[in-house]
Amino acid sequence: MEMREKQFLQLLANILRGLALDAIEEANSGHPGLPLGSAEILAYLYGKTLRHTPENPNWPGRDRFVLSAGHGSALLYAALHLSGYLSLADLRNFRQLHSLTPGHPEYSRTPGGETTTGPLGQGLANAVGMALANKMVTASLGIENENLLTGQIFVLAGDGCLMEGVTQEAASLAGHLQLDNLIVIYDSNEVCLDGSTSECLTDDTRGKFQAFHWYVTEIDGHSLNQIEDAITTARVHQGQPSLIIAKTIIGKGSSKQGTSSVHGAPLGKEEVERTKRNLGISLEPFWVPPEIKNAMAAHQAQLAVQERQWQERFKTWQTANPEKADVWKFYTEKTLPPDLEEQLWQMKIAPNQASRQASGIILQKIHQLLPFVIGGSADLSSSDKTILKASGIVSASDFGQTNIKFGVREHAMAAIISGMALSGLLLPYCGTFLVFSDYMRPAIRLAALMKLRVIYVFTHDSIFVGEDGPTHQPIEQLASLRAIPGLTVIRPADTNEVRAAWSWILRQAQGPVALILSRQSLPDLSETNIPTNQGVGCGGYVIRKETNPGAIDHCLIATGSEVQLALKLAGQLTADGQSIRVVSLPSWEIFDSQEQGYRDSVLGGNIEQHWSIEAGRETGWHKYIGRQGRAICLTTFGQSAPAKDLARYFGFTVEQILKRIQQTEA
Amino acid sequence: MEMREKQFLQLLANILRGLALDAIEEANSGHPGLPLGSAEILAYLYGKTLRHTPENPNWPGRDRFVLSAGHGSALLYAALHLSGYLSLADLRNFRQLHSLTPGHPEYSRTPGGETTTGPLGQGLANAVGMALANKMVTASLGIENENLLTGQIFVLAGDGCLMEGVTQEAASLAGHLQLDNLIVIYDSNEVCLDGSTSECLTDDTRGKFQAFHWYVTEIDGHSLNQIEDAITTARVHQGQPSLIIAKTIIGKGSSKQGTSSVHGAPLGKEEVERTKRNLGISLEPFWVPPEIKNAMAAHQAQLAVQERQWQERFKTWQTANPEKADVWKFYTEKTLPPDLEEQLWQMKIAPNQASRQASGIILQKIHQLLPFVIGGSADLSSSDKTILKASGIVSASDFGQTNIKFGVREHAMAAIISGMALSGLLLPYCGTFLVFSDYMRPAIRLAALMKLRVIYVFTHDSIFVGEDGPTHQPIEQLASLRAIPGLTVIRPADTNEVRAAWSWILRQAQGPVALILSRQSLPDLSETNIPTNQGVGCGGYVIRKETNPGAIDHCLIATGSEVQLALKLAGQLTADGQSIRVVSLPSWEIFDSQEQGYRDSVLGGNIEQHWSIEAGRETGWHKYIGRQGRAICLTTFGQSAPAKDLARYFGFTVEQILKRIQQTEA
Repeated sequence: MEMREKQFLQLLANILRGLALDAIEEANSGHPGLPLGSAEILAYLYGKTLRHTPENPNWPGRDRFVLSAGHGSALLYAALHLSGYLSLADLRNFRQLHSLTPGHPEYSRTPGGETTTGPLGQGLANAVGMALANKMVTASLGIENENLLTGQIFVLAGDGCLMEGVTQEAASLAGHLQLDNLIVIYDSNEVCLDGSTSECLTDDTRGKFQAFHWYVTEIDGHSLNQIEDAITTARVHQGQPSLIIAKTIIGKGSSKQGTSSVHGAPLGKEEVERTKRNLGISLEPFWVPPEIKNAMAAHQAQLAVQERQWQERFKTWQTANPEKADVWKFYTEKTLPPDLEEQLWQMKIAPNQASRQASGIILQKIHQLLPFVIGGSADLSSSDKTILKASGIVSASDFGQTNIKFGVREHAMAAIISGMALSGLLLPYCGTFLVFSDYMRPAIRLAALMKLRVIYVFTHDSIFVGEDGPTHQPIEQLASLRAIPGLTVIRPADTNEVRAAWSWILRQAQGPVALILSRQSLPDLSETNIPTNQGVGCGGYVIRKETNPGAIDHCLIATGSEVQLALKLAGQLTADGQSIRVVSLPSWEIFDSQEQGYRDSVLGGNIEQHWSIEAGRETGWHKYIGRQGRAICLTTFGQSAPAKDLARYFGFTVEQILKRIQQTEA
Repeated sequence: MEMREKQFLQLLANILRGLALDAIEEANSGHPGLPLGSAEILAYLYGKTLRHTPENPNWPGRDRFVLSAGHGSALLYAALHLSGYLSLADLRNFRQLHSLTPGHPEYSRTPGGETTTGPLGQGLANAVGMALANKMVTASLGIENENLLTGQIFVLAGDGCLMEGVTQEAASLAGHLQLDNLIVIYDSNEVCLDGSTSECLTDDTRGKFQAFHWYVTEIDGHSLNQIEDAITTARVHQGQPSLIIAKTIIGKGSSKQGTSSVHGAPLGKEEVERTKRNLGISLEPFWVPPEIKNAMAAHQAQLAVQERQWQERFKTWQTANPEKADVWKFYTEKTLPPDLEEQLWQMKIAPNQASRQASGIILQKIHQLLPFVIGGSADLSSSDKTILKASGIVSASDFGQTNIKFGVREHAMAAIISGMALSGLLLPYCGTFLVFSDYMRPAIRLAALMKLRVIYVFTHDSIFVGEDGPTHQPIEQLASLRAIPGLTVIRPADTNEVRAAWSWILRQAQGPVALILSRQSLPDLSETNIPTNQGVGCGGYVIRKETNPGAIDHCLIATGSEVQLALKLAGQLTADGQSIRVVSLPSWEIFDSQEQGYRDSVLGGNIEQHWSIEAGRETGWHKYIGRQGRAICLTTFGQSAPAKDLARYFGFTVEQILKRIQQTEA
C-alpha cells in the first residue's frame, strides 16, 4: 500500500473512532470496545475495497458487509455516514426513537445495512445464506461468466459470535459448500463482556476452521497492509470460504484499552477527550477533516462509476440473453402468474393425505411455476416432504440444483434462509419437525423482525407423532410460535386448507410464515372446499353453521387435525337436537387482522359455550373462547405410544370430548 | 483381549442386535440402524467396562452412559435388559403407553437411564454437565484422593449430534475445562436419515475436536479389540476429554446395511430373519442363549461387589472425615435450614433496586447457606448479577471455585446445568438476558420434561432494556416460556417479591424455574411485604383491595415492573371515586395450581372490567381477563430508544393507561 493511501486510511480509521465515540457519548449508551478495536478494518472496507454505492443500495452486484457483532453498530454507522448513507443528524440520533441508527443494526431501517444483528452468530449465518443465494442464482441462470452476481459477502464477527453454536453450524455448511464468496473477519481481541476470553474460550480457531475446510489467515488487525494483503488474497482464493483472524486490541486508543471495561459502556467525556488526544484527532465532536470528506467523496464517485458500468454490462447481457433476462426479472420481481391459485386448486391429489404429504405434492407444482421458491431440510426431507423431486442436491460442484441439504443444523438453516431472502433473489423455505422449531427460534425471531419472506415447513405437528414420544411431540410450539410478533402461523385441516395456505403464503404473506403440518393422514373435508379468500385467507371461518342461529349451544373452534373431530362432534350433537357452530381457525394472525365485524360473525352471537379443540397448549385460546371457554388441549408433555392410544389417553376421541360437552350441560 | 472374552462380547453384540430388532418389530416402529451399527460398542460397555449396578442405579461412584443419539433406544434397552434393569416384558412393550421403554430414552422412567435424549446434541451437552459436577464436587469437598466421584461419563453420539451447534458449544467448553472424565464415542457411519453424510457433512472431525483440545482416536467400531484399546486409553488419559471416532456400518448385518433406508423404519419380519441368519443367531424372537444370561449375571455380580466395596470405602471415609461427610450429605440431600426464608427476608437490601440487583444480592446469601447452589452465566454475569462474589472462576486448574463461565454459549449452558442437576449433587442456576432464552429452548424443554431442579435467571426482561433495541428487548419470551409444560415462570415486582420468589424456588419448586428480572430500578412496594405463602407462593394475590367489594369497576392485573404502574393507576382511579382491585400475578403456573376458591377470590367478583398490564405479548392473558378483558401489552417488537421514551411510545405511562381506562368507561 502506498504511503499516501495508508495515511488516508489510518486517518479515516481514527475519524471513524472519533465519530463512533461521539455518537455513543451523545446517546450516553453504546459499545465503544469494538469500534475502537476494529476501526482499521472498517476503514479499509469502506475506504477502499467494498463495492457498493448509496446511489443504489440494492445494486445486485454489490459486495455486502454484515456486522455480525452488532453491538459495534456505532462504527458501522460512522462508516455509513462517511460513505454517504447517513447524515450527521442520523449519527447524532444514535439509539434514539425512530432514528436510522438504532442500538443494533436493523435491516430496512439503516440504508446500507444488510441485515439485523445483535443476537450473536446470526449475522454470520445470514451471510452464508447471502453467499449461497448468489452462487445458486448464478448457476441456475447460467451466468457464471457474466460477472453479475460476483459481489462478495464480508462479515465482521467477534469472540461472542465465534462461540455460538449457530456459527459452527453455518461455518461447517459454508465449508462443505466451498462458498469462496464469503470472507469472515474475526475481530479477535480476546476480551468479552465478562472479562478475558481465556477464562472460557481456548479453541484453536485456525484449526477449527481448517477442519471446516476454510482458508484461514491471521493478521494484526491494526495493520492496514496486513488487512489489505489478507482481503486481497481472500477475494481471489477459490474453493473455500475465508477466515481472517484479525488480532486487535479492544478499545484501542482509550486508556482502558485491552480490558472488558471498555466493551459496553460509554467512556465519558474526559476519557473520550483523552482517547482523541491519543489518536491525534480533534476534540471537536463529530469532527471530520476536509481531506477525509474529499477523499471519501472521490471514492464514492469511483464506486458510482463501477455501479454504472455494471448496469451497462447488465443491459448488454439482457439484450444478448432476453430469455435469461426474463428469468432474472422473474426472480427479482417475483411476479405470480394470475392463475396461480387456480393451478394449485386444480391439482389432482389423492384423497385423505397427511397434510405434510399434500404440501409436498403442491410444493412440486409451486417450484415448477415459481423456480425462485427453493429450499431444503435439516436432514428430514423424506419425512417433511420438502424435497423437490425434479432436481438434485445443491453441492459445491453443482449450485444449479435446488435441494439444500442443511444437515442436522436447524438453527443455521433458519438463519441461512433469512440470508437467502435478504439476497432479494429467492423465496426460500426450510423444513423440519415442529418440535425442532425450538432450535431455530433466535433466527425465526429475527426473520419476523425483518419481515423477511421465508417459509418454515414444520411437520409432525402434535402428539399424533405417536411412538417417537414426548421428545418429538410438539405441545407448546404452536403457542410459542404464535407469540412471535409478525410471524404468521397456519395449521391447515386437510388438503384443501393446505392448497389455500400455500396460495395465501405466495400471494399475500408480508413476512415469515410457519406452515404446520400433520404426520398422520387427514380426511378430506367437503366444508373446506371454498375459495382461499373465504377460508384460510380469513384466518378463521365457520365451516358448519348452527341449526338455530338465535341460540347456539356450543361453538367448537379447532385447527388442523382436530377440525375433523369438531365436525364429527357437531354431527352427533346436532343429531341430539343441539345448535352447534364449528369454526376452523387455521391462522390466528390472519384472523386477528380481519375487521371486527367479520370476527364477530365467526365467534360471536348468542353462544352458550365456546370450546377450543387443538392438540397443543391452551395458551392464548381464551382470547377466542373467553375466560369461561373450555379448552380441549394438553396440559402436559406427550407420551410414547401408538397415535390411537394417545388419542384415547389424552382425551382426543369423539366419544371422550362428547362426554365432556355433555357433562358441562348436566 | 482373550479369545473367550472376545467370543462372549461378539455374541453379546449380536444378541443385542437381535433383541433390538425384535423390540422394533413388535412395536412396528423404531430405528434399527444405530442398534445394528453400534452393537459392539454397547456390548463392550455393558458387557465389560461400565461400572454400574441395577442394585443401586443411583450409586454416586458409577460410570454413566448417555445415549445422545436417542433414536437408538432399542439398543440401550436391550443392554439394560441383559444387565438386569429391564424385564423381557419391558422390552416387548417398546414404544407402548406407560412402558419403561419409550421411543426415546426418558430419565426417571427407564431404570439405568441417565437422561432424556432424542433431540440431537442434548445428551452430549448433559454429559458435559455430569462430568463437570463430579469435578466440582470432588474439588469443593477435597476428595480428589478418595476415589469416590471418579465415575466416568460415556456418551454415544451420532452424525446428527455432531452437526448440532449445541454439541460444538459443549465440546468447546469441555475442552477448555479439560474434562478428562468425559469419553464420547462417535458412531460415525456416514449415513443420516436423508442419505449419505457426504452430502452435508464433510468436517474433519478429528481436527475439529483437536482444535477444541480433545484427545481423539479413530477406530473400527466393530472391532472389540480396538474398542477396548481406545476406551482403556481414554479412561486413563489426563487433562483432556476423549473422542473416539468409531467407524461403523449403519444397520450392520441387514441386507440394507450402509444405507439410510435402514435408519428409521422397522425392517419387517423377513429382513429381520435374514439379518439374524447373517448374524448367526436364533430366529426365535427375544432369544438370549444361556451362556449370555450366565455371563451377564456373573458380570453383574462382580459389579455389585464393586459397588459394595465403594460403599465400604465411603463409610470409612465418612468415619474418618465426619465434617466432610456432613457436607456430602448436605449436597446430596439438600436439606434446607428451617429459617431459610427468615434469613432471606431479614437481609438488608438498599431500597428500590432493580430486581436483577436484588436477586444478585440474595444469591450471595443463598450460596453461603446452601453451597450446592452453584452456577454461572453466558458472558453476562456482570449484567445478570449471577456472580458469586466470595469465589473465583471455575477452571481446569481449580474446580473448587463456584462461578462457571459458560462463554457466549447459551444453549450448551442450559443443557450443561441440566447435566449438573442430573448428577444429584448440585442445584444449579444459569443467567443470561431474557431475550436469549430463545437460544436455550430445546434444553429448557428437556429440563421441564425431566422435572429437573434448575434455575434460569433471565434479566433485562422487557422493552425497558431501552437503547439496545428490539433485538435485545424480549416481547414474546414470557408467553413462550409460560407455554412450556412443567416450567414455572416467576416475574417479581420488587425486592420483596424477589425474596419470596427465591424462597419458593428453594423450598417448593419441583422442576425448573425461570426467574424473570428487570434491568431497571423498581420502587419497593409496601403491599408486597407479606409472607411468601400469602404472596408469590400463591402465584397471584390481591395487593390492593377494592373500596366497594360489591361492585368493582376495574380489576388491574400486573406482573413485574408493571405492578407499580397498576398501583399508581389504582390510586388515581380510587381518588376519582372508583372501586379498583389490583392483583400482582408473578407466576401463572403457581397461581393455576391453587384451588378454584382461592383463584376466584383473586380474580372473581362483580367486576366491570378486567385489565392486564404487562410489557409483553397478550398471549395467554385472556385466561385471566376473559374475552372482553383488555390487555395493556405489546403487539409488535420494541424500538431502540431510552426506556422513558419507550414507555411513552408504547403507552406504558400512568397517564396513557388512565386515559385508556377512562375512554372505556365513556
